[in-house]
Amino acid sequence: MRQKFDVRGGRSVGLKNLPLIRAELANAGLDGIYLPHEDEYQNEYQPAANQRLSWATGFTGSAGAALLLKDRAIVYVDGRYTIQAEQQLDPKMFETESFTPPGPFAHLESLDLAGMTIGYDPKVLSSRVADRLKSSLAVAGAKAKPMARNVVDKAWAGRPRQPMAPLQVQDISFSGEASGDKRERLGKELERRGLDCAVITSPASLAWLFNIRGGDVACTPLPLGRALLHADGRADLFVAPKKVSDDVREHLGNEVVIRDIKTFGAGLRELSGKSVLVDPGAAPEWVTTTLKRAKVDIKAGQDPCELPKATKNAVEIAGSQRAHERDGVAICHFLHWLETGVKPGETTEIDAVKKLERFREATGALRDISFETISGAGPNGAIVHYRVSEESNRTFENNSLFLVDSGGQYKDGTTDITRTVVIGEPTDDMKRHYTLVLKGVIALTVARFPKGTTGTHLDVLARHALWQAGLDYQHGTGHGVGSYLGVHEGPQRIAKVWAETPLDTGMIVSNEPGYYKTGAYGIRIENLQYVTDAEHIEGGELPMYGFTPLTLAPLDRRLIDVDLLTDAEKEWVNAYHKRVADTLSPRLSDSENFATWLEKVCAPI
Amino acid sequence: MRQKFDVRGGRSVGLKNLPLIRAELANAGLDGIYLPHEDEYQNEYQPAANQRLSWATGFTGSAGAALLLKDRAIVYVDGRYTIQAEQQLDPKMFETESFTPPGPFAHLESLDLAGMTIGYDPKVLSSRVADRLKSSLAVAGAKAKPMARNVVDKAWAGRPRQPMAPLQVQDISFSGEASGDKRERLGKELERRGLDCAVITSPASLAWLFNIRGGDVACTPLPLGRALLHADGRADLFVAPKKVSDDVREHLGNEVVIRDIKTFGAGLRELSGKSVLVDPGAAPEWVTTTLKRAKVDIKAGQDPCELPKATKNAVEIAGSQRAHERDGVAICHFLHWLETGVKPGETTEIDAVKKLERFREATGALRDISFETISGAGPNGAIVHYRVSEESNRTFENNSLFLVDSGGQYKDGTTDITRTVVIGEPTDDMKRHYTLVLKGVIALTVARFPKGTTGTHLDVLARHALWQAGLDYQHGTGHGVGSYLGVHEGPQRIAKVWAETPLDTGMIVSNEPGYYKTGAYGIRIENLQYVTDAEHIEGGELPMYGFTPLTLAPLDRRLIDVDLLTDAEKEWVNAYHKRVADTLSPRLSDSENFATWLEKVCAPI
Repeated sequence: MRQKFDVRGGRSVGLKNLPLIRAELANAGLDGIYLPHEDEYQNEYQPAANQRLSWATGFTGSAGAALLLKDRAIVYVDGRYTIQAEQQLDPKMFETESFTPPGPFAHLESLDLAGMTIGYDPKVLSSRVADRLKSSLAVAGAKAKPMARNVVDKAWAGRPRQPMAPLQVQDISFSGEASGDKRERLGKELERRGLDCAVITSPASLAWLFNIRGGDVACTPLPLGRALLHADGRADLFVAPKKVSDDVREHLGNEVVIRDIKTFGAGLRELSGKSVLVDPGAAPEWVTTTLKRAKVDIKAGQDPCELPKATKNAVEIAGSQRAHERDGVAICHFLHWLETGVKPGETTEIDAVKKLERFREATGALRDISFETISGAGPNGAIVHYRVSEESNRTFENNSLFLVDSGGQYKDGTTDITRTVVIGEPTDDMKRHYTLVLKGVIALTVARFPKGTTGTHLDVLARHALWQAGLDYQHGTGHGVGSYLGVHEGPQRIAKVWAETPLDTGMIVSNEPGYYKTGAYGIRIENLQYVTDAEHIEGGELPMYGFTPLTLAPLDRRLIDVDLLTDAEKEWVNAYHKRVADTLSPRLSDSENFATWLEKVCAPI
Repeated sequence: MRQKFDVRGGRSVGLKNLPLIRAELANAGLDGIYLPHEDEYQNEYQPAANQRLSWATGFTGSAGAALLLKDRAIVYVDGRYTIQAEQQLDPKMFETESFTPPGPFAHLESLDLAGMTIGYDPKVLSSRVADRLKSSLAVAGAKAKPMARNVVDKAWAGRPRQPMAPLQVQDISFSGEASGDKRERLGKELERRGLDCAVITSPASLAWLFNIRGGDVACTPLPLGRALLHADGRADLFVAPKKVSDDVREHLGNEVVIRDIKTFGAGLRELSGKSVLVDPGAAPEWVTTTLKRAKVDIKAGQDPCELPKATKNAVEIAGSQRAHERDGVAICHFLHWLETGVKPGETTEIDAVKKLERFREATGALRDISFETISGAGPNGAIVHYRVSEESNRTFENNSLFLVDSGGQYKDGTTDITRTVVIGEPTDDMKRHYTLVLKGVIALTVARFPKGTTGTHLDVLARHALWQAGLDYQHGTGHGVGSYLGVHEGPQRIAKVWAETPLDTGMIVSNEPGYYKTGAYGIRIENLQYVTDAEHIEGGELPMYGFTPLTLAPLDRRLIDVDLLTDAEKEWVNAYHKRVADTLSPRLSDSENFATWLEKVCAPI
């Protein structure tokens, strides 16, 4: 099994480790520290050594931050993690506050921290966050101080080592564009802007730019490292030397100089006198301070790989389609098992995770799961980012809902799908709530929109039916997805939070509205879809964009209250199910029963 | 007549005046100037003396900016003014570029202005815009230089004097809260934030804070002046002394010190050593530089009057409702005349403006029009912010559309309404386009939304039906509206451009999607509506907000393609028309014909 079910984090962790951190504060001349979830690489999923927030507090969510003072500790968590934070953080030791993007700064400003010195790690915080933190702490009366060594690391006896997974070549049959071509294309753009070089600090950008993948982080094939891309298309790639095999060396060629990650600071200093692009939202503050000291002319701007990486080329889209067909077969087997194999009162959430992983393994192409499967039976479905452990593991009950959010990493694409199914018979409320969520999914799938539209403009389409019913969900509606890379990828997103980047053809986004009834059940439906040029329709005057679904798996017809759907919505459901059946039927196993089952669950409503 | 029909601006103006400005550049040591539409008060509607952009270029739109160089001149205009700019700017002398908020900065950055010095007026540009301008010019290779005296004013022989309209008391029966109470309330908030004083530079904020109105600007009863609000609730009001009558002096009382506007700089310097709130988006840069030189501790933050002014109290809402009923009567008379009194081939756009103004005057309560009526027959309707002049005046044609966007200033409220009507018989396309726009109006009226929702989240509701048909409009969907104040008021708005301020109860916004077919016709429907607590509905779990329409006037039933509406949309149209008829019928003139007409145009579809 790839997924583990051990108990992680929790109240005992914070009770044990926070005092160890506090004991280090005085030595470091600090009254407290600001500790984000992110690590040196702004990773969402991190190597064990970098999971500082979780070690310090016991809160294991995939986003958040903490302000740890001598006599007070505040953990900032977003709407997906409020229930989990209550469980994992002892209220005797921790307060929790809302982590609404761009972060906890408004709350920090409301605190009275007069005269305090608060430490932060300049190798972790981006310049943007560090600047924001400094000004917020100033409002609160405190001073921010960069820590020479992170006090968490000092306090953390037995902190794991950094991972050393070998790099892998991502073949051009998957990437669709040679690294040399990418580097030349981006280099020319740097030249046009009068820049000599760009500092690339994001491992996902490295992976895209060099057509490599790594294994340093669970669930995402990231190569942890840094790079300098020069305007002539040449590059320096900074990684641990032992990660680089001869194959990879040959793949990278002579235009890419492989250098030890330990010499990255020296590499930055060599840029003295040059004009260099740095992404203040991605690069740690120490990159900027190192460059400034070396008298580099720093130009702040977006990581040049970010947009090209987000707008998938035809090869990447075709790969994603293949990956979704393959993944759809696994999901169908799983949904079939949920309908026919689950024994209420016996089968558990962990059983379901194991089944699903086995079906994905059976494709023969699974490289990894793309995140830990969220397997939420009954009330656990209402925990938006629930992780099942031996301790939390629930047994399926009759007449309940089951929410399963999961994904696979395949060489040709990354998948992410959520389905909610009924075990037994649904209540009227379950059907009403499911159908309202489904209406949101449909509205956001069939939307047509002009150039310049961002995900924030479209977000309301997924929420509208819920809002009209007096309901909402406390998370974003959609995130970008990588091509055999991060299951959460920017810069595009569909969310209330302002998304500046317009949606453009080739961008993959998730479409995942939900409804959560605390203590009872959770509903989420998630398809991945990509931005396409919309077909011209009669009377249309502007070129419009639209979405094409990638995810192929039946929705639970038993949960649809047909009376709540318009004719157009019914037609959409039927057309989608027809496409699922037509595409997957030939790929499903030979059993006749199975084909009959697929026909039944995809029958018109 | 309040509205004038003289030709303003145009190609000859720019051809004549731009050379006069260029002749002043060398003396001032400048290679060019940056000239915004806004004036010293960030006014949208300005006294004649401050209409510098229009004098310099001949472009008379209500927004925009220009970069005037020795051998090149670029005028930045937004989507509402592209057609007008083509007409008013000679392409031999002027280029035009897009003015997309936050301004023309991206385009400025793309220019090559190596070594140039570009002047700007620090008494006009806000700190925020000045900072943005400086960094954009730096990217283009140029230096920004504050002008000691605006070279436009130097070049402008016979520039008009500043207006001296007397201040008027806005009675508490209209404002609903005494100035002393407002000042105490805001002063306490300043104190809570550790501030001694707030600099108020916006005339609209002055008007709200002191419950006064002025007459310095056409269409908006603004008192041009400045103020300092102290944490103890006392204030200094800086205006030209001759504007202040004994009545106003008595109204203001002892807690408000009336000082000559000429001493405002001295007033700022008196704040030395204090902690002072300044709105960097509202205050001219020289306010900040003056305070800095006087060693004032400047805190950047929103003008403290802005939110309270935007969230109308119960008295202001009741006043707005009365104003809209009164205005609705005038509009009904006007729509009746359009249907029965227009002679195709004879009646003109100017005739229509005169008729409408007379109907509004007949209410006996009109203080001013709230902007120059947009009276667009046939193709002129496609000019989003069209102003009719003796030169442009079109005759109504049979089987054409007429778009009329107008408003009145009444002591109890400001109105703004757009109706589009058919003269004769509409084509199928006209009906289809009108109905798509109407669907947007309805969607944005019936929307329910949770706390924290901003106008950017809701904007798509008004565009969705058009987008699905491959259409869009190049302007915002809604703006705030004042209470006997500006017809365009912030901070809330409904637009693609990111609006940070959440919608809150009491905020008045317009709802005005449109469709424009260049050279053929324009369609816009505009109602004002205000944010209310939505009624609880069964199964609803969250408190939601909604909108209540203020505008009362029939829609043109002849233009509605009923087949394109859902049942719910039809019901909304019928319920709205019933409300219009029920409310206005008792107030309409005694003629029996007239009552029958209203019944007819409000009959169910």
